[in-house]
Amino acid sequence: MANPKRVLTPQSEDFPRWYQDVVAKAEMAENGPARGTMIIKPWGYAIWERIQAEMDARIKATGHVNAYFPMFIPTSFLQREAEHVEGFSPELAVVTHAGGEELAEPLVVRPTSETVIGDAMSRWIQGYRDLPLLLNQWANVVRWELRPRLFLRTTEFLWQEGHTAHAAWDEAQEETLKILFQVYEDVIRNVLAVPVVLGRKTDREKFAGAEVTYTLEGLMRDGKALQMGTSHNMGTNFAKAFGIQYTDAEGKVQFCNTTSWGVSTRVVGGLVMSHGDDDGLRLPPEVAPVQVVVLAVKEETIGDAERLAAELNGAGIRAKVDDRINQSFGRRAVEWELKGAPVRIEVGPRDLANGEVTVVRRDEDDKHTVALDLVATQVPELLAHIQESLLEDALRRRDEFTRDVDKGDEIDGAGFFRIPWDALGEDGEAALAERGYSVRCLVKEDGSVPAPHDDRNLVAYCAKAY
Amino acid sequence: MANPKRVLTPQSEDFPRWYQDVVAKAEMAENGPARGTMIIKPWGYAIWERIQAEMDARIKATGHVNAYFPMFIPTSFLQREAEHVEGFSPELAVVTHAGGEELAEPLVVRPTSETVIGDAMSRWIQGYRDLPLLLNQWANVVRWELRPRLFLRTTEFLWQEGHTAHAAWDEAQEETLKILFQVYEDVIRNVLAVPVVLGRKTDREKFAGAEVTYTLEGLMRDGKALQMGTSHNMGTNFAKAFGIQYTDAEGKVQFCNTTSWGVSTRVVGGLVMSHGDDDGLRLPPEVAPVQVVVLAVKEETIGDAERLAAELNGAGIRAKVDDRINQSFGRRAVEWELKGAPVRIEVGPRDLANGEVTVVRRDEDDKHTVALDLVATQVPELLAHIQESLLEDALRRRDEFTRDVDKGDEIDGAGFFRIPWDALGEDGEAALAERGYSVRCLVKEDGSVPAPHDDRNLVAYCAKAY
Repeated sequence: MANPKRVLTPQSEDFPRWYQDVVAKAEMAENGPARGTMIIKPWGYAIWERIQAEMDARIKATGHVNAYFPMFIPTSFLQREAEHVEGFSPELAVVTHAGGEELAEPLVVRPTSETVIGDAMSRWIQGYRDLPLLLNQWANVVRWELRPRLFLRTTEFLWQEGHTAHAAWDEAQEETLKILFQVYEDVIRNVLAVPVVLGRKTDREKFAGAEVTYTLEGLMRDGKALQMGTSHNMGTNFAKAFGIQYTDAEGKVQFCNTTSWGVSTRVVGGLVMSHGDDDGLRLPPEVAPVQVVVLAVKEETIGDAERLAAELNGAGIRAKVDDRINQSFGRRAVEWELKGAPVRIEVGPRDLANGEVTVVRRDEDDKHTVALDLVATQVPELLAHIQESLLEDALRRRDEFTRDVDKGDEIDGAGFFRIPWDALGEDGEAALAERGYSVRCLVKEDGSVPAPHDDRNLVAYCAKAY
Repeated sequence: MANPKRVLTPQSEDFPRWYQDVVAKAEMAENGPARGTMIIKPWGYAIWERIQAEMDARIKATGHVNAYFPMFIPTSFLQREAEHVEGFSPELAVVTHAGGEELAEPLVVRPTSETVIGDAMSRWIQGYRDLPLLLNQWANVVRWELRPRLFLRTTEFLWQEGHTAHAAWDEAQEETLKILFQVYEDVIRNVLAVPVVLGRKTDREKFAGAEVTYTLEGLMRDGKALQMGTSHNMGTNFAKAFGIQYTDAEGKVQFCNTTSWGVSTRVVGGLVMSHGDDDGLRLPPEVAPVQVVVLAVKEETIGDAERLAAELNGAGIRAKVDDRINQSFGRRAVEWELKGAPVRIEVGPRDLANGEVTVVRRDEDDKHTVALDLVATQVPELLAHIQESLLEDALRRRDEFTRDVDKGDEIDGAGFFRIPWDALGEDGEAALAERGYSVRCLVKEDGSVPAPHDDRNLVAYCAKAY
């Protein structure tokens, strides 16, 4: 630990304060001037860009294409689907004036794009050959927040939202689960190293207008849950509201089955709260904008630091030289610990004289010298090991934080509480809500994800949540 | 020409109508439900993604980092810089209600982010070591449009906006020109194959609040100009309005010099109007989402088409199989001509029997057979040749459309008119404006870009413009 003075509030003392501190000190984000908005600073945005790249590659690999729909939506569009307008009305931002005049029909800033995309789908889809239609967009959306928190809950946030239309209900269901597993779980678990419980939302918690909502729930280091992404099968609800129809092979006009699914900048908050410690972020190498920082200790070692970084870059590693020799070494080391770079290589004159550099792991207390000519071959293995180790660490913590209970009133404290859904039920769920707990998701007894209307042998994961 | 029936209005008959037709028929974009908004359809968005990737790589290579600032800006922010608020006021969209209540201070939807980023810079910059600060963001912005046209002029559009702060004026000027040449001209000329005239805007045409604006002006196939991007040196104007200051090495507090620069989805319109012909788009290979479409003529040739596409992909070429054998071959060929894929390879049973395929160039009438085992080695060269040829074609057309005149009243008709700035002047510029012409930019007599306040030996490029 290169951090003798306390830079952050310790997690054990005040976790929300620690979060606020680390987001500020790692220069990830800060509040914007308008209520609840967020400025994503370069380090935070670079992490988001990495997440985007990983998500986007998988979204495209599963056959989807990107498009862009307008953020201004006529108020009337939102009113077409009853549950949808009810769900989003309290959170809307409304443009009433534009171009110096009052608008005849006010425009809503999209809280999500089901309605405007549903309207487009109704025009784009004619026959069964137009299906499936597999769209995705990267965009900003607005949901007015009364208690904003950087990344976790902001008035404006960035996300991707997928919207697809299918002939059969089964195909929509398959799509909903494909995204859940092949895109979202794959990135969140294998790139962000965050273990998640995959399950179905209760009716109380499902998306406004969905037939069924699936979710990925992470457990943060304070024992609170965070919803990392959701995937919805809308059935024909939106198709009926927007007239999304196709003519089947027999010439009969049918309603489409649609899905939607999204992951937002919120996952950046989940990444911070899953791995961060009292010294700052701990970024899994797969998502780290800088995997290896090569720290030139003195001016005379800058050349060697640059050669080493170039060699690492050549091996496909995201390495960056820190040559700010005018600033104290300790201060720079602390800064990179705060920012969570997985590996720090210190290039100092004494080590160099022995043909060595010092390699420091961020995830655990480990610091040792390595022969300069072995670094580039050893680092990839080290990064893979750190990636694995962070996931194991998070898994162990999650399992320690997960308890089985029989009755709703035994749910008390931090972590996940697993309870048979039959023993809890909707009344029990409502009672929990009054005490600040929610059912994060329902899973089958064997841990698998339940089909939409299958209510047998379900286990409810309950927790306090962000 | 595989296009016996007229799909598009010919350019010579009605160019604006041709543009509207091709954007629709190539499935690039369509109008959104709210006035002046645009739905960017997958093919149009894929082109934009290619442009983004090329721009982003160069923006990063020149030392800039991406960040994200909120789109809602307090009204008071805009009022701090006098010219800026005057320039943008008529185009603003205003949020007056949010979260079910009327807002105490209305929020403007960003028409550009100088003000909100200026405010952040004033907090982020303390000393000279914090400089230069080199930021960029990819975002949507809103400028209310009374006469919207897809890509060219839409109420909401996508763009990148760079914002930088420097100690010295010279450094800001160097940055302004670096972006103009190393980022914008490089992408527009070498990726989009659109030749541009680089020059300085007149005071009448410069950005609201800038000390000097540089521009890249393309000439479309109808002889109208299109501004493809701009780069502004703000001097200390915004620094003074927002208090962007630094302490120099001698401990003296100084105002920063700032720049901003942007390129938007408008360039997609410029790409269409620079290269498109009566059969549709002609995409330069560097920007084409699909460089080679491999068209399986019959079901029995799908396997060979797939093998060939895989071989091309392996060689780093963006190749895609069209295996829609249920649709007529002619219709599919027309569709790919509309969409502008640079090369079409037809894989038919007769050719295959001879160990050949048919290779068709989109940019000119050229169709010949190639031995199957030579395709993958010949295609890269062919693509490079098409890229070059499209630029030459556009350059030739631009030069034919450029005339030298001595007096303002000789300016009449399509194309660029070059006139000594001394002979035109601001009065002449105002007189031209009444006839629908504008000074697109000022260049030095030798064709170079003039320094900010250098008014000697300038030539004005005048044209009607989009």
